[in-house]
Amino acid sequence: MKPNFSLRLRVFNLNCWGIPYLSKHRADRVKRLGDFLNRESFDLALLEEVWSEQDFQYLRQKLLPTYPAAHYFRSGIIGSGLCVFSKHPIQEFTQHVFTLNGYPYMIHHGDWFCGKAVGLLVLRLGGLVLNAYVTHLHAEYNRQKDIYLAHRVAQAWELAQFIHHTSKKADVVLLCGDLNLHPKDLGCRLLKEWTGLQDAYLETRDFKGPEEGCTMVPQNCYVNRQELEQFPLGIRIDYVLYKAVSGLYISCKTLRTTTGHEPHSGSPLSDHEALMATLCVRHSPPQHNPSPTHGPAERSPLISVLREAWTELDQGMAQGRWWATIAGYVIGLGLLLLALLCALAARGEIREVAVLLWTPSVGLVLAAGAFYLFHVQEAKGLCRARAELQHVLGRAREAQDLGPESQPAGLLGQQEGDRAEEQ
Amino acid sequence: MKPNFSLRLRVFNLNCWGIPYLSKHRADRVKRLGDFLNRESFDLALLEEVWSEQDFQYLRQKLLPTYPAAHYFRSGIIGSGLCVFSKHPIQEFTQHVFTLNGYPYMIHHGDWFCGKAVGLLVLRLGGLVLNAYVTHLHAEYNRQKDIYLAHRVAQAWELAQFIHHTSKKADVVLLCGDLNLHPKDLGCRLLKEWTGLQDAYLETRDFKGPEEGCTMVPQNCYVNRQELEQFPLGIRIDYVLYKAVSGLYISCKTLRTTTGHEPHSGSPLSDHEALMATLCVRHSPPQHNPSPTHGPAERSPLISVLREAWTELDQGMAQGRWWATIAGYVIGLGLLLLALLCALAARGEIREVAVLLWTPSVGLVLAAGAFYLFHVQEAKGLCRARAELQHVLGRAREAQDLGPESQPAGLLGQQEGDRAEEQ
Repeated sequence: MKPNFSLRLRVFNLNCWGIPYLSKHRADRVKRLGDFLNRESFDLALLEEVWSEQDFQYLRQKLLPTYPAAHYFRSGIIGSGLCVFSKHPIQEFTQHVFTLNGYPYMIHHGDWFCGKAVGLLVLRLGGLVLNAYVTHLHAEYNRQKDIYLAHRVAQAWELAQFIHHTSKKADVVLLCGDLNLHPKDLGCRLLKEWTGLQDAYLETRDFKGPEEGCTMVPQNCYVNRQELEQFPLGIRIDYVLYKAVSGLYISCKTLRTTTGHEPHSGSPLSDHEALMATLCVRHSPPQHNPSPTHGPAERSPLISVLREAWTELDQGMAQGRWWATIAGYVIGLGLLLLALLCALAARGEIREVAVLLWTPSVGLVLAAGAFYLFHVQEAKGLCRARAELQHVLGRAREAQDLGPESQPAGLLGQQEGDRAEEQ
Repeated sequence: MKPNFSLRLRVFNLNCWGIPYLSKHRADRVKRLGDFLNRESFDLALLEEVWSEQDFQYLRQKLLPTYPAAHYFRSGIIGSGLCVFSKHPIQEFTQHVFTLNGYPYMIHHGDWFCGKAVGLLVLRLGGLVLNAYVTHLHAEYNRQKDIYLAHRVAQAWELAQFIHHTSKKADVVLLCGDLNLHPKDLGCRLLKEWTGLQDAYLETRDFKGPEEGCTMVPQNCYVNRQELEQFPLGIRIDYVLYKAVSGLYISCKTLRTTTGHEPHSGSPLSDHEALMATLCVRHSPPQHNPSPTHGPAERSPLISVLREAWTELDQGMAQGRWWATIAGYVIGLGLLLLALLCALAARGEIREVAVLLWTPSVGLVLAAGAFYLFHVQEAKGLCRARAELQHVLGRAREAQDLGPESQPAGLLGQQEGDRAEEQ
């Protein structure tokens, strides 16, 4: 690698809103997306909500000359919806499916059936190892009363841990995706603090797009206006995040976000806006230290965000256990009812009613049993994330008590070192 | 680190057979295990099948003076059964739960409810980063007609991938656990070939234990003799595997395996035998190149084992899809039956029978629906593993075609480089 080495990386991210039979003008939008990607010839295009594998196969064929490498991340019952197209060969790929992802009985929300995940691609570009991650976290259906909050925080933690543990030898780390988290939301802060990833929107000096970098805007004709009632400008839930390690410097030269319509044809590609970032990796520090021009790069300290996440997971755990207990009582009552019905039928009293009620009672016991098992598993999953988080919190506190100069090597993992190198 | 640096690592591994209410003399065995571990004072004790968290808490209290650090890996409904006790501080830990782990309707086998996983600990010992993994794969209930073979191969692949992607910056990698795989089984070969891990039993010059290193032997009074009918000497399914990277050398100085009873009291600690290995990590190559003395260190080439695994996963996928199709037909028939019953009831014909049959028919449709969804998800999981494997296979073939000298950097990931360094 030459000392004046510089790598330019053009990245595209879009939540494609590709739900078969439900998303409007899907076929047309997928076709236009293919044309757009071919025209723009990015280094990497990372897509979410490509729920139909046929759509992926169509894009794969269409994009083959420009993006010879592609991968579709399969998981769960429906799939993760994640896929990637790359101009450069993909060295390796793998994925991690989130332990918690909503509730199977919330069929109308459907997230549980999707198998939400994070996909990892390892690429070699100009002698550098690039770990590119693409993800999509659980949707937020009701911001005021969000029953999925603990799950989303656990997902953000698992995502951060997956990146932390799999990127230790990477030179450049890139994360794109629909986090379903606003910039100041707990999950977003947790992810950034624990991985040391920087937010392209906050770091770039050259941003063009909707106000406040929103990626779901009321100008987009596919957007559900009711969801944006509280946010007249829109919301920012799709991200390009990055960091460089081992003495390299990365900066976001430009960030473009569509503004409710595709730049060429005018019609939107999805109900989300596309992000297009040009990143620059160098050996020497950038000429001008990039500073935020349109928003403060807020970074709550690691300890406070870990403490906040710990509380959230703890509350989720208590809730999970509460539901399991309720289900336990229902199972007990159902079994009592069954015994009573059997006794009545045996004694010949109201035999017909007893026989009629027997099967629904069995159904009730079975359903409560499934509900019980699900919430036991939920509590275990949250407990696992809380334990990991607590360990990191303990070590972060130790490091703080010892002071920054006397931090034992390896404390807080790698990212503290990375940040020091980046600064 | 000094040039004549040498690190000695004493490791203990045991599948504890700790099933509440079912495993014989559990409380006594756990107590004796605690006494034994305290007496021997290993660097690391990695345990499987500690299904009861109370047992873990009991051991944690008992072992606290000798092993100040401990962790219990929670997952699934029952748990992963994995835990670890360490004399040295644990820097970081995380876990990966296997995507596929048997069938929920095989309740008598129970693996699905366990959430089988691989746990990772990161330790710093003498300036070295040690990644220690503990795991337990799906059990083998019928070797002649193994319906879980594809799942176990997929688990072995996920395990290998997890190690491969999370250990890139580790100096030493250690994997202990009950793989439920015989040494020449596909999953075992796949794991070793893709990670480059070496088998302590095959590598050590100083082994004391049952013939052929068996870890389930007929001399053990808790062993189910029927399971060992085909194997008069016993079977080897528990392993200590290791590798060193970045110019370090690791060797297994001694390996001791219990022989159906605990060395001190005479009664066995479990239905499995315990493995006790003394590993030595050095900068300079060992004086005598360790060579196998009691078994050939067979290493089928990566390509052939990948091809074999691909075929197995492909067959599993076809099987999963077949079951999903069958379930689809049952759903269709169930819905037809429901419509017929409704029509009969509406027309007043055999109304009582129709009403009586209605609820079981709904049950049938729901059960077939759950069965369908489960097998769709199974096929997706196997397809995902097959795709990852196929990619590695393609790159391995490319590398072979180009010849060893013209391998592009990074081909086959890291382990090829590691092996070269180890040789």
